Amino acid sequence: MEQKIISWLKSAFPRRFPAEIGIGDDAAVLFANEDQWVVTTDAVVDGVHFQRDRHSWRRIGRKAIAVNLSDLAAMGAKPQAIVVCLVLPLGTVMENVQELYAGISEHAAKYNVAIVGGDTNFSDGPLMINITAMGTIAADRNPWKLSGAQLGDAILVSGSLGGSILGRHLDFEPRGDLVAVIAELFDIHAATDISDGFVFNLNAILSASNRGATIDLDKIPMSDAAHDMSDDRPPINHALYDGEDFELILVVDQNTADELLKLTDLPCPLTKIGTIVSGSGVHGLQSDGTKVELPVHGFIHGQGLPSP
Amino acid sequence: MEQKIISWLKSAFPRRFPAEIGIGDDAAVLFANEDQWVVTTDAVVDGVHFQRDRHSWRRIGRKAIAVNLSDLAAMGAKPQAIVVCLVLPLGTVMENVQELYAGISEHAAKYNVAIVGGDTNFSDGPLMINITAMGTIAADRNPWKLSGAQLGDAILVSGSLGGSILGRHLDFEPRGDLVAVIAELFDIHAATDISDGFVFNLNAILSASNRGATIDLDKIPMSDAAHDMSDDRPPINHALYDGEDFELILVVDQNTADELLKLTDLPCPLTKIGTIVSGSGVHGLQSDGTKVELPVHGFIHGQGLPSP
Repeated sequence: MEQKIISWLKSAFPRRFPAEIGIGDDAAVLFANEDQWVVTTDAVVDGVHFQRDRHSWRRIGRKAIAVNLSDLAAMGAKPQAIVVCLVLPLGTVMENVQELYAGISEHAAKYNVAIVGGDTNFSDGPLMINITAMGTIAADRNPWKLSGAQLGDAILVSGSLGGSILGRHLDFEPRGDLVAVIAELFDIHAATDISDGFVFNLNAILSASNRGATIDLDKIPMSDAAHDMSDDRPPINHALYDGEDFELILVVDQNTADELLKLTDLPCPLTKIGTIVSGSGVHGLQSDGTKVELPVHGFIHGQGLPSP
Repeated sequence: MEQKIISWLKSAFPRRFPAEIGIGDDAAVLFANEDQWVVTTDAVVDGVHFQRDRHSWRRIGRKAIAVNLSDLAAMGAKPQAIVVCLVLPLGTVMENVQELYAGISEHAAKYNVAIVGGDTNFSDGPLMINITAMGTIAADRNPWKLSGAQLGDAILVSGSLGGSILGRHLDFEPRGDLVAVIAELFDIHAATDISDGFVFNLNAILSASNRGATIDLDKIPMSDAAHDMSDDRPPINHALYDGEDFELILVVDQNTADELLKLTDLPCPLTKIGTIVSGSGVHGLQSDGTKVELPVHGFIHGQGLPSP
C-alpha cells in the first residue's frame, strides 16, 4: 500500500518549481535562491483537531495544510512547498488517501504550493497528518516577528472572531490571501495568527515585545458563529477566547494602519481594535468607558472551551 | 503542559545558525544563502518503528532524528536544521519529553544541526515523532539522485548489513559522517540509504536509472547481527533483505571507486560489492560462479521480516 501511494503521489503531484527534485527520491531538493526560508510544522490528530467519524477526509486534508499556511502568513512569508507525513489507521483505503490529498490540494493550488515529499505510515492509532510548510521572504525584507510591537502602534485583526468550532476551524481561509496583497507594501511591526484564542495570541506578541495592549471591546469583529454558539457564554467571550479562528493579528504604526484601512480590495476585512501601550497584558475598554483586565488563557484542545 | 514544553525548548535550544528566528515564533526563519535546500520528513510511531514499553525515550529520540539525517546523507546534503512534531500519549511527563530531546540532541550536536521549531500535541493514541530535516547542497553541486547510475559503474555499500532489529535500527549512525568526508571531493552518480532492505533500495536506484545490477554475494559485508539472528534464514538473507540498516548505497564510476577504497580515514568501511549492468533488477553472483535473480521486495514494518 505504501508503494502504491508513493506511485500515485508521483503522478498526481509531478515535480514543479521550487522543487528541483520532488516526490520519490530520498529527499526533496529546492532550487537555490537568495531568499530567507521560513519553516513551520503542525500536526492534526483525530479526536484532537478533527473527528474522523464526523468530518470528511477532504476537510481534514484542508485543515492539515491550512494550519501551516496560517503560520507562514503570520510571518509574512510566501508559501512555496510542503512535505506531508501521514500516519494512517489500519483499514485506510486508497480513496481515503486521495480524498485527503484532494483537500490538501485545494489550498496548495490556490497558494501555488508544491507538494515535494512526504512519508506514509500505518499504525493502529488515530489518523495523524503532519505537514511541514516552507515559504520564502526576500533577503531584504523583515519577517513579521512576535517581538516588534512599538508603543502607540495600532492593533488590527483580519476577518471576524469566535465560534470556529461550528465549522470554520476546518474550513477557514489561511490569510496568505491577505499577506500576498500587503507584505511587499507595508511595514508590519509584529504579527501572529489566532490559533489558541485572540487574547492568548495577542499576549504572545505583548510578552515578546515587553508591552501591553488596550482593546476596544466594541470594535472586536464578531463572527456569526460567535453569536450562534448556544452556551451560556456571551458572543464577545467567544470572540476573545475561542481557539482556531486562524485570523491574523497585525501590529503597525498608526499611519500604516490608516493606509491599510483605506484599501478597498482586500480579500478579507481588516479592523483596528486597539493600541499597544506600556506595561503588560491585555485590557478591554468597555462601552461605558471602564477598563477591565482580560485574563490570559488559551483554548485547550480536547478540553472544551474555557471561560474567562 | 504544551506551554511548559515550549518554554523549556526555548531555553534548552536557543536560537543559533542557520536560524534567524528559532523556537517560539509562528515559524522559524533561516538565514538567506545561495545553497540548494534539501528537505525530508520521516515519522516514527510506537508499535511500528519502536516499542515504548521496551525502548527508552532517549533511544526513540535518537532514532527519530537519525532516520531523517540518513535521508539527507543519501542526497549528499549537509544537515542544517530540524523541526520536531510530537504527538504524545496522555500521561507523558516533562522528564519523558526531555529524555526524548536528549536523544535527538545527541545526533543534532554531532552533526551541528539546529532545532529551530516544532509542534507538540497530546492524544490518546501511540507516541509519534515526526521530524522534518533540512540540509544544504552548494548551488554548484549535484544532489545524489536515484536516477544517476551509469553502465559499468561500481556499487559500494557503507558499514555492514543485516539484523538491525537486534538493536541497530535504534542506535545506528546516520552516514552524515561519511558524507561530510566525501561529498565535496567525489562525484557520486547515485545514492540511497537502506531503509527497506538492500535489494529493495538498490532496485530503486536501478529502476530510476533504467539499469540492472550484478552483486557479488561473497562481498556483501555482513554484520554480526546478521549472524546472530536466530531464525531459519541464513545471514546473507538478512543482509540482503532486512530493513533499517540505514547504510548508504553509493554508485560511482570505477576510478572513483578505486580512489574511495584507497581512503584510510573514513568513519566507516566502504565495500565494493557489484556493478551496474544493462537490463533491470538485481542478480547475485554466487561463489560457484552461477547467477541468481534476487527477488525485489521490501521489509514491511510491523509484518515481520519477509523471506525471499
